[in-house]
Amino acid sequence: MTFREDGAAALEWAARYLDRVGDFPVLAQVEPGDIRTRLPAAPPEHGEPFAAVLRDLDEVLLPGITHWQSPRFFAYFSNSAAEPGILAELLAATLNSVAFIWRTSPASTELEALTLDWAAQLLGLPSGWHGHIEDTASISTIAALAAAREANGGRVVVCSEEAHSSVERAARLLGLETRKVPLDGEFRLDSAAVDLTDAAALVATVGTTSTTAVDPVPALADACEAAGVWLHVDAAYAGSAWVCPEFRWSKAGGERADSLVVNAHKWLFTPMDCSLLWTRRPETLRAAFSLVPEYLRTSDEAESLSDYGPALGRRFRSLKLWAVIRCYGREGLQKRIREAVRLAEVFEGLVRAEPGWEVCAPRAFSVVCFRTSGSDAENEELLTRANKTGELFISHTKLDGRYVLRVAIGNERTTEADVRRAWDVLRRTSGRLSKSA
Amino acid sequence: MTFREDGAAALEWAARYLDRVGDFPVLAQVEPGDIRTRLPAAPPEHGEPFAAVLRDLDEVLLPGITHWQSPRFFAYFSNSAAEPGILAELLAATLNSVAFIWRTSPASTELEALTLDWAAQLLGLPSGWHGHIEDTASISTIAALAAAREANGGRVVVCSEEAHSSVERAARLLGLETRKVPLDGEFRLDSAAVDLTDAAALVATVGTTSTTAVDPVPALADACEAAGVWLHVDAAYAGSAWVCPEFRWSKAGGERADSLVVNAHKWLFTPMDCSLLWTRRPETLRAAFSLVPEYLRTSDEAESLSDYGPALGRRFRSLKLWAVIRCYGREGLQKRIREAVRLAEVFEGLVRAEPGWEVCAPRAFSVVCFRTSGSDAENEELLTRANKTGELFISHTKLDGRYVLRVAIGNERTTEADVRRAWDVLRRTSGRLSKSA
Repeated sequence: MTFREDGAAALEWAARYLDRVGDFPVLAQVEPGDIRTRLPAAPPEHGEPFAAVLRDLDEVLLPGITHWQSPRFFAYFSNSAAEPGILAELLAATLNSVAFIWRTSPASTELEALTLDWAAQLLGLPSGWHGHIEDTASISTIAALAAAREANGGRVVVCSEEAHSSVERAARLLGLETRKVPLDGEFRLDSAAVDLTDAAALVATVGTTSTTAVDPVPALADACEAAGVWLHVDAAYAGSAWVCPEFRWSKAGGERADSLVVNAHKWLFTPMDCSLLWTRRPETLRAAFSLVPEYLRTSDEAESLSDYGPALGRRFRSLKLWAVIRCYGREGLQKRIREAVRLAEVFEGLVRAEPGWEVCAPRAFSVVCFRTSGSDAENEELLTRANKTGELFISHTKLDGRYVLRVAIGNERTTEADVRRAWDVLRRTSGRLSKSA
Repeated sequence: MTFREDGAAALEWAARYLDRVGDFPVLAQVEPGDIRTRLPAAPPEHGEPFAAVLRDLDEVLLPGITHWQSPRFFAYFSNSAAEPGILAELLAATLNSVAFIWRTSPASTELEALTLDWAAQLLGLPSGWHGHIEDTASISTIAALAAAREANGGRVVVCSEEAHSSVERAARLLGLETRKVPLDGEFRLDSAAVDLTDAAALVATVGTTSTTAVDPVPALADACEAAGVWLHVDAAYAGSAWVCPEFRWSKAGGERADSLVVNAHKWLFTPMDCSLLWTRRPETLRAAFSLVPEYLRTSDEAESLSDYGPALGRRFRSLKLWAVIRCYGREGLQKRIREAVRLAEVFEGLVRAEPGWEVCAPRAFSVVCFRTSGSDAENEELLTRANKTGELFISHTKLDGRYVLRVAIGNERTTEADVRRAWDVLRRTSGRLSKSA
């Protein structure tokens, strides 16, 4: 085996995959267990060539891949692993840095701090915030809520009914209760209904998972400030849109957050995993996680980013984000964000123009919630059948108790033709359903 | 920009890096802030070619890299990102799967389960255990201790004074107390001193970070069973050695663990991050993390591995471990583990044969703890000066209050010549210190 030859084959596999990713069925068309049963139950005694891995990737694994990189992946939050980010992951794995303290990887630690500052500038966040990377928003939320618990000793996490499930999971892990606040008429947290009694933290969502609704952060920041409650802003999806000034209305109040998360792997074109967590109270995160008491710290000590979250070992995750920002620039990021939103507008227009279909929630960014006038069961059947065509992958949510379809745009490969094709598939599938009913 | 051209350049960078990784100063010879000040304080407005990223990687970042892939990286636990694992990370980033539920990436979910079964077979773990991957042992420990808390409601985590710091961090996060048990004469947890009052879990370490001591797991398993306490076995480092039958003495009692962690990114030649967590009580992990109550589960539902740990989003981490196991086979893994242990024996022999030097702890695997007969300050100065030569990187620990040097062998590139060269550097540096004293 030589690294150059095997590497060239792996690279060619990757290049060919990206060339034809739009041709695969977007949602894997397999049943549970199909993939596993096609692989040997026992590990090999002797080594095999890397070519065997690539062969099985094609022949065995590929049918079991749901193609997140497909231009017609419209489920959950559609994302992109941009090419500079993919190649940066190759480099990070080659270096295999483990940045648990500064000297085990000075470049990783310092590039992470710098890249988070760059990202803060791109998104228009206050200068001077402390930023670091966690793998997922789930872990970022755990870090933020642990700091909140440390800060004021409260036992309750307050969030809306539309907050991401990871908030409740994190609260449970930390031994905190979750108090759900009802929504206003547009799927936002109703600030008039907030009760901060015994609260450690309030989580405001900018871009909820269901509808991308934006909670009223300025009013919530007032309430948190008055009550001494930690304000965590979950902008995991929508925060990336702040790279464009026209979407910064949704950032209002965010500058008053104690902590704020944006997932670069959601809509900032960076491969999984890259969750950006900022705080204006880094000493509180450190107090929650570091085993070195604050009074023993010296100012000349180089910073260890592992002091700000639950994991000690840290991959060189900043390299991919840095590569994407370098290769796209502010302009390139803006162009891609704007195109995704434009395409969502196009899709929304198609739905609105079609009798028997409705848009079910205000569209703030690149996600459209919609359904036909049929029953919940009919809409669910429509989703199942449309996904089975392999031509697209969409997911659903429940709004006011009704089954609602979602189209989330965010892959940088998605074109207007892809969006129109998805709409055609949905309309055709719906038409067939009506006939067979 | 074309992916094939940029990719070829990135691959060539990686190949050249690995060709010459032994030539770099192992420990980065920079001061805090050196790297960051050499990079622009603001992000670019316009995109740059990927070649600019590679250029800065060479010119700016490389001096700030501590070379974990160097054959003379002997600090902490020396590890390896093997070539098949590196290339698998390129493929995983290309696919960009996010496996939070089965259908979002059936191949990732099923390959992860299969690969963990393969690894269990290679290490001689009981069949039928449930395995999944977390990013680090820190997070695996959080998952295990959350399950323990769920299982019996205890409020205390019991471990030895030599248990990894991540145990105390995880306990704190979960709102549990840590109770440290004293050591016996060989840096192992003294089972006679265990007090399990109010305990949720006992963490036994197989291969402590300081000396790779092996706690008396069979006796601890008896105590846990009698008291209804969760037994978590931290075999993050030494568990990989079980691929060789001659090291399975250290596995005794491990089959009675409720959960057990082995870090494939430590000594199983897999790039960061790949922490393998097994449990014989998967329903308890699920109860701790899933928001779906157990009574609502149906048997025909495909398993979601995000139900077993704190993070919802999950990278395709199994691909790199699978690639390494495929390309090395049991035989290749055994050969590399045995060679690391043999080289540690060689180093131990050199220390033992040299007047004025001593071995400070029994050597169980591939780590040697040693020092000169000089003062603590002299040994510390020796470490600083030796690391400053750039010829090697070693770290230290404290044993019985004394400053002790550690040589940890585990990089697959390390040869006997590297070990002898490291010893020469240490002896020469020590000689110069004596003369200047």
